[in-house]
Amino acid sequence: MSATAHGTETQVAAAAQRFSATRHRTIELCAPLTPEDMMVQSCPEASPAKWHLAHTTWFFESFILREFLPGYRAFHEDFTWLFNSYYQSFSAFPEKRLRASFSRPGLEEVLRYREHVDHAIERLLERNPVPEVLRRIVLGANHEEQHQELLLTDILHAFFSNPLRPVYLRDASWLHPAATGGGNEPEWLSFAGGLSEVGHNGEEFCFDNELARHRVWLEPYRLASRPVTCGEFAEFIADRGYEKPELWLSAGWDAVKANSWRAPLYWSQMDGSWSQFTLRGEFPLVEVKDLPVSQVSYFEADAYARWAGKRLPTEFEWEVAAATAGVEGNLLDSGNLMPLAAGEAPSLFGDCWQWTASAYLAYPGFSTLPGALGEYNGKFMSGQMVLRGGSCVTPAAHIRATYRNFFGPETRWQFSGLRLAR
Amino acid sequence: MSATAHGTETQVAAAAQRFSATRHRTIELCAPLTPEDMMVQSCPEASPAKWHLAHTTWFFESFILREFLPGYRAFHEDFTWLFNSYYQSFSAFPEKRLRASFSRPGLEEVLRYREHVDHAIERLLERNPVPEVLRRIVLGANHEEQHQELLLTDILHAFFSNPLRPVYLRDASWLHPAATGGGNEPEWLSFAGGLSEVGHNGEEFCFDNELARHRVWLEPYRLASRPVTCGEFAEFIADRGYEKPELWLSAGWDAVKANSWRAPLYWSQMDGSWSQFTLRGEFPLVEVKDLPVSQVSYFEADAYARWAGKRLPTEFEWEVAAATAGVEGNLLDSGNLMPLAAGEAPSLFGDCWQWTASAYLAYPGFSTLPGALGEYNGKFMSGQMVLRGGSCVTPAAHIRATYRNFFGPETRWQFSGLRLAR
Amino acid sequence: MSATAHGTETQVAAAAQRFSATRHRTIELCAPLTPEDMMVQSCPEASPAKWHLAHTTWFFESFILREFLPGYRAFHEDFTWLFNSYYQSFSAFPEKRLRASFSRPGLEEVLRYREHVDHAIERLLERNPVPEVLRRIVLGANHEEQHQELLLTDILHAFFSNPLRPVYLRDASWLHPAATGGGNEPEWLSFAGGLSEVGHNGEEFCFDNELARHRVWLEPYRLASRPVTCGEFAEFIADRGYEKPELWLSAGWDAVKANSWRAPLYWSQMDGSWSQFTLRGEFPLVEVKDLPVSQVSYFEADAYARWAGKRLPTEFEWEVAAATAGVEGNLLDSGNLMPLAAGEAPSLFGDCWQWTASAYLAYPGFSTLPGALGEYNGKFMSGQMVLRGGSCVTPAAHIRATYRNFFGPETRWQFSGLRLAR
Amino acid sequence: MSATAHGTETQVAAAAQRFSATRHRTIELCAPLTPEDMMVQSCPEASPAKWHLAHTTWFFESFILREFLPGYRAFHEDFTWLFNSYYQSFSAFPEKRLRASFSRPGLEEVLRYREHVDHAIERLLERNPVPEVLRRIVLGANHEEQHQELLLTDILHAFFSNPLRPVYLRDASWLHPAATGGGNEPEWLSFAGGLSEVGHNGEEFCFDNELARHRVWLEPYRLASRPVTCGEFAEFIADRGYEKPELWLSAGWDAVKANSWRAPLYWSQMDGSWSQFTLRGEFPLVEVKDLPVSQVSYFEADAYARWAGKRLPTEFEWEVAAATAGVEGNLLDSGNLMPLAAGEAPSLFGDCWQWTASAYLAYPGFSTLPGALGEYNGKFMSGQMVLRGGSCVTPAAHIRATYRNFFGPETRWQFSGLRLAR
Repeated sequence: MSATAHGTETQVAAAAQRFSATRHRTIELCAPLTPEDMMVQSCPEASPAKWHLAHTTWFFESFILREFLPGYRAFHEDFTWLFNSYYQSFSAFPEKRLRASFSRPGLEEVLRYREHVDHAIERLLERNPVPEVLRRIVLGANHEEQHQELLLTDILHAFFSNPLRPVYLRDASWLHPAATGGGNEPEWLSFAGGLSEVGHNGEEFCFDNELARHRVWLEPYRLASRPVTCGEFAEFIADRGYEKPELWLSAGWDAVKANSWRAPLYWSQMDGSWSQFTLRGEFPLVEVKDLPVSQVSYFEADAYARWAGKRLPTEFEWEVAAATAGVEGNLLDSGNLMPLAAGEAPSLFGDCWQWTASAYLAYPGFSTLPGALGEYNGKFMSGQMVLRGGSCVTPAAHIRATYRNFFGPETRWQFSGLRLAR
Repeated sequence: MSATAHGTETQVAAAAQRFSATRHRTIELCAPLTPEDMMVQSCPEASPAKWHLAHTTWFFESFILREFLPGYRAFHEDFTWLFNSYYQSFSAFPEKRLRASFSRPGLEEVLRYREHVDHAIERLLERNPVPEVLRRIVLGANHEEQHQELLLTDILHAFFSNPLRPVYLRDASWLHPAATGGGNEPEWLSFAGGLSEVGHNGEEFCFDNELARHRVWLEPYRLASRPVTCGEFAEFIADRGYEKPELWLSAGWDAVKANSWRAPLYWSQMDGSWSQFTLRGEFPLVEVKDLPVSQVSYFEADAYARWAGKRLPTEFEWEVAAATAGVEGNLLDSGNLMPLAAGEAPSLFGDCWQWTASAYLAYPGFSTLPGALGEYNGKFMSGQMVLRGGSCVTPAAHIRATYRNFFGPETRWQFSGLRLAR
Repeated sequence: MSATAHGTETQVAAAAQRFSATRHRTIELCAPLTPEDMMVQSCPEASPAKWHLAHTTWFFESFILREFLPGYRAFHEDFTWLFNSYYQSFSAFPEKRLRASFSRPGLEEVLRYREHVDHAIERLLERNPVPEVLRRIVLGANHEEQHQELLLTDILHAFFSNPLRPVYLRDASWLHPAATGGGNEPEWLSFAGGLSEVGHNGEEFCFDNELARHRVWLEPYRLASRPVTCGEFAEFIADRGYEKPELWLSAGWDAVKANSWRAPLYWSQMDGSWSQFTLRGEFPLVEVKDLPVSQVSYFEADAYARWAGKRLPTEFEWEVAAATAGVEGNLLDSGNLMPLAAGEAPSLFGDCWQWTASAYLAYPGFSTLPGALGEYNGKFMSGQMVLRGGSCVTPAAHIRATYRNFFGPETRWQFSGLRLAR
Repeated sequence: MSATAHGTETQVAAAAQRFSATRHRTIELCAPLTPEDMMVQSCPEASPAKWHLAHTTWFFESFILREFLPGYRAFHEDFTWLFNSYYQSFSAFPEKRLRASFSRPGLEEVLRYREHVDHAIERLLERNPVPEVLRRIVLGANHEEQHQELLLTDILHAFFSNPLRPVYLRDASWLHPAATGGGNEPEWLSFAGGLSEVGHNGEEFCFDNELARHRVWLEPYRLASRPVTCGEFAEFIADRGYEKPELWLSAGWDAVKANSWRAPLYWSQMDGSWSQFTLRGEFPLVEVKDLPVSQVSYFEADAYARWAGKRLPTEFEWEVAAATAGVEGNLLDSGNLMPLAAGEAPSLFGDCWQWTASAYLAYPGFSTLPGALGEYNGKFMSGQMVLRGGSCVTPAAHIRATYRNFFGPETRWQFSGLRLAR
């Protein structure tokens, strides 16, 4: 049996480690949650936390165990289709809105489902599996990391929807990091542009939408050294930015009126003062004014940039700037769970996803994975904008310079902010 | 201290007994449910079971304890508005759809809330309260009985929405009652009509919408001795009743098309055979064919009657027929939790609510209670039809000949069926 | 040939006269309109004026000529289904919203269609037709009178929708009738009630929904001598009636919020002053304050009555009061085309339709006409309220004490107002 | 007075000629229409033809005459805002849907409005105007050419909506052009790619969205020599392309289901045979099978390309291919008013707009015109895809290689088809 046909010991160990760490972290993220919390689906974009636990497990079962583990016995035959999200080629699946009715299986059964699948994957890894198994395990871990982020953004929305505004993380010892210059003007980092390569390179994991690596031409450009802050965004509001149609894209202005937007999603106003709801509870604006603004839509990011006389960067301007930087920053691993004020040498990564001026489209030579896995990214290449850089709830292992996140321009429930360009 | 200013001992004891029994039964109905089940709100008409527990408690707290128990300390100040359903004059309240996000308070806290209020009501009852307290306790018990029924209809919808179709009540010893003549033609009971009195009479509790008692003139009429059965309704389907616009009211035909109705709400078809989902699980049609059909809308009831060459009775035809009958029948107390085939001397009460041909409107001289309690019934007197008779999930103590239930003509999630008239 | 098998000469002459007069009046009503005006369909309830011309013609062609005139040659085969409104049993028909795309046939062709059908009806009448023909001609004339009223209400809405606010009738010589006591308190007319007969009686034409004549029991009641005026309604607005949920039915309050209602449909506010748009143009409120308020929904009528401490009459209270009165009042024949201030002996008829507290339901023994004509009235007996009395755009020949008009409780584009009862 | 401050005689003459020719052609396009036809607005995207006549006139009045012709007297003060389409910075304007209620002004008055403005522009041109006037006149002519195309696409939709299916152009002498090879496989034209310049260059008129000219990098690519034909698209349908979710973008599949798409917009099926409705009436598919398919959405174009194993070109691939080709093809000037089968040397231009794989976004350095004119193109840069090449209803003078048209991906009422790339 040759090393090319099967994973090397190192590769197997790496996959096992990635698998195990990811699976444990998902459980850890649920520690502050009750089984009832894990039932809530408070907006059409969101899913219940329990569903995230089950669906990520379904992914490993459906795309690895059923195909590669001889004699694998499914935990529950109905889960095959019950926890399918949207893979039309794999099986029928329930309407998304019905996930809120999945009181059965209960949390305990879902946790047993996770254990069942975890053990099976471990058994499979002990059998010197073919490289495709390792590739899919890494894919499954990356998939689960995306759902870790969604789980936290969905819980934040769930707690915001509850009029009692429960707090995900109460931590008396946590010192709200002091502002360290975030209130000053950002610096403007210069980039020469020219013929540049973008897209993923090398052997490490990436999603299909990061390929093929290809050349683009960039004019010289500048990027702000840090994202736009809550304090800066409050000036836009104070200048009646939400009331001036000339600042908005036509579809954005329609969204402002239809949804009565007048501030980022989790901002509330009482007696004239703004505050922001976070995973750590409610903060008056004055305490978070130097933090990057988040939970804004593309439309709001675009309008802010127009108001500021700047623009949003394209995804390639961002990627070329980030290509040589290290993946450091305020990511999930920091444990802050909310953006932080920029320090002295702010990173391009972390705090909040940064809306770019680029529509989410296929790269030249893009091709999807065969079978149902081909539905992972490609079928969403319509009507969405690219975000770059990861957020305070993105696992550090998950993000990279070529990573492309994407949402519709009206989406607000993510940790989505903006960095200016010019 | 006179008996007129305060309740007599007997009255106090009766109220205490009614209160205690009602409160206990609500808890008993939740015995088969997990805390997660009690989070589900699977359609806009429904509420989570946990919310029913809390809201019925809020009713006693808001309309009795705050007003009549000196020094009463609220269990939680926010519950004052959190569990208000729709009483605009009492407080602001959350949008109904948000109830599904009330993971906090958890079930345990809601149970403590119930105990807190139960103890306070008991203390109040020990203090020889004024008659208004007793009246409101009885009103609160009646209110809670309505929510007992809703709790069961809502759970049935929740379990129907869950693709796994959990079963509320598994009871191996329960023998599905055999059909005893239900398959035969109903008899036609004759009534002479004439000048008749309708509406509540006497000192017993009734809702404001049952008053004032007044005279109506009825022509002679006949009522079927039993409701329409599932088997009879299946003939309507087989005769393509759902495809013939001439059988339907115009708005009913619109509803058929908009919602793709082709059978009662909980009927499913697989391989050409119908089955019905119930609180006791799924039954093939052949097993339930002699049971009264339920979960049909007014539009379906009306179309069936037209197809059958008959009509629905008015609410007064029904009431006059029931006025002298005893309140007996297959009600919640029987424990069946689903309609039963008609026996030899079928009752007008129970099995399923019976749609009437009467719109839900005010009686002559109708007046509402003062204050927020006035919003209880009167403000819904628009666009709804009257149902009479109670169902297999209606407490026997709750129903009477003058009782008026009401829902919009497109409503299907209730135990609502029909009895023909001519 | 006996008189029973065929119409008498007098009956034929009467039908011919009714036919001819009705057909001419429809054309006269269109005199102020351009072919372009007659294309407008400015809300889902309305139809283009040209469509009214064609549909009323279609009615005579479809239900009389095709059936009773041997050798009748249709004007245009496609018109058979093109101008069907909603008779499912007769033919397929276009969606209502498409009527605005019927630029072809042009107005001239529609007028030729009318002439073609008029001549054919005249030929048929010369042949001593069977009584059913005469009955249907009278039915067709009554049908066309309903569309005369709709034509005017639809044009008023069309002109209100046009930002230029064109005026239907400019008439310099018309003196706006001075108020003659309308500003005073209404008198309260007393009625004894008791066992009363309602519904149509005798040989004259009536619609199926006015039958069967039957008995009802009424308690003693009082009716206001005149409808509520614009000035009185303005007080309700000034008292913030549109902002007080306790005055409204629950569904009414939903409608207020969803549609941002704050005054009757054709009222506008500029610089704090109200004005009302009418078929004679825009009038400041001060000039129309003594005129009956119109273009209010049932919800607004009901809320006003509650605010005023009164109630709406039932349809039977109204009918019994009107039964012995003459059909006089400000109807279409007066040529005013807008309500007038009440004179000294105001009529129960005319000015504006009066919302009643009665839902539109079948009378005991109600049966529809056979065939497609059976869809005329019966299939709308759901979700609508009864209006009585006719309006300033109702032909006098069309209205009577037993006449039942009906619209959904949120409908506002009709000349619909209210008369108080207590 | 220098030539730089004012237009040269040649420039003035050119502008006058462009103005006059454009204004005349708009009137010519209306020749087959009745005033009633010109009232129809049969879908939210469309406008009545009369409105197009007035709005294009408003554009010249508002942005040229009011600003540059001293003493200009407006034709009608209300037209200032009545015929504004969407320029928020210029004035308030009516909701788009209300345009169907503009029976007044009548067509005759709108034609007088056109004459009034035409004469004023002529007077202004006689006064040696500043270059900005000439620039705006050319802009206004280009604006009107866009509305010429819209007028025809809107009338086609209006006539398709009319169940009688009127025909815009009946021309007995017109010979349906025979297929000349269109049924064969297309050739594949090769392009080398590399660093390429795109965007407008030179002094001629262009829209702001074609600027700035800039460099892009293209990989080598191939384009089909002709668009996809109706016959080819029929194979996609026959292969059940509309029933296979794996062929569609996720949002496209949602659109298929929500709108029940099963063929291009103007295709109808009777007795199993397809036909297509055009400005020249209805044609069986067999007669138009070699013509380019049109009235398909981006979603359908994308799904077809996926089914065919090809892809859509980017807008820059298209532009570079067309850069050196002459602007020839089946455009409005040919008078065909429908696509034609490809000849021996087919053009990249004409027949139907070609959906590209590019989202409609700003070019580097894009800036809008100052003032209200800045709303012309920029504010729509969200959620739309670029189309290139012009159609059979695009004026030849209007189109060029750098021209960017744009519509939402679900849009179907345009002459929009596709050309494959690989």
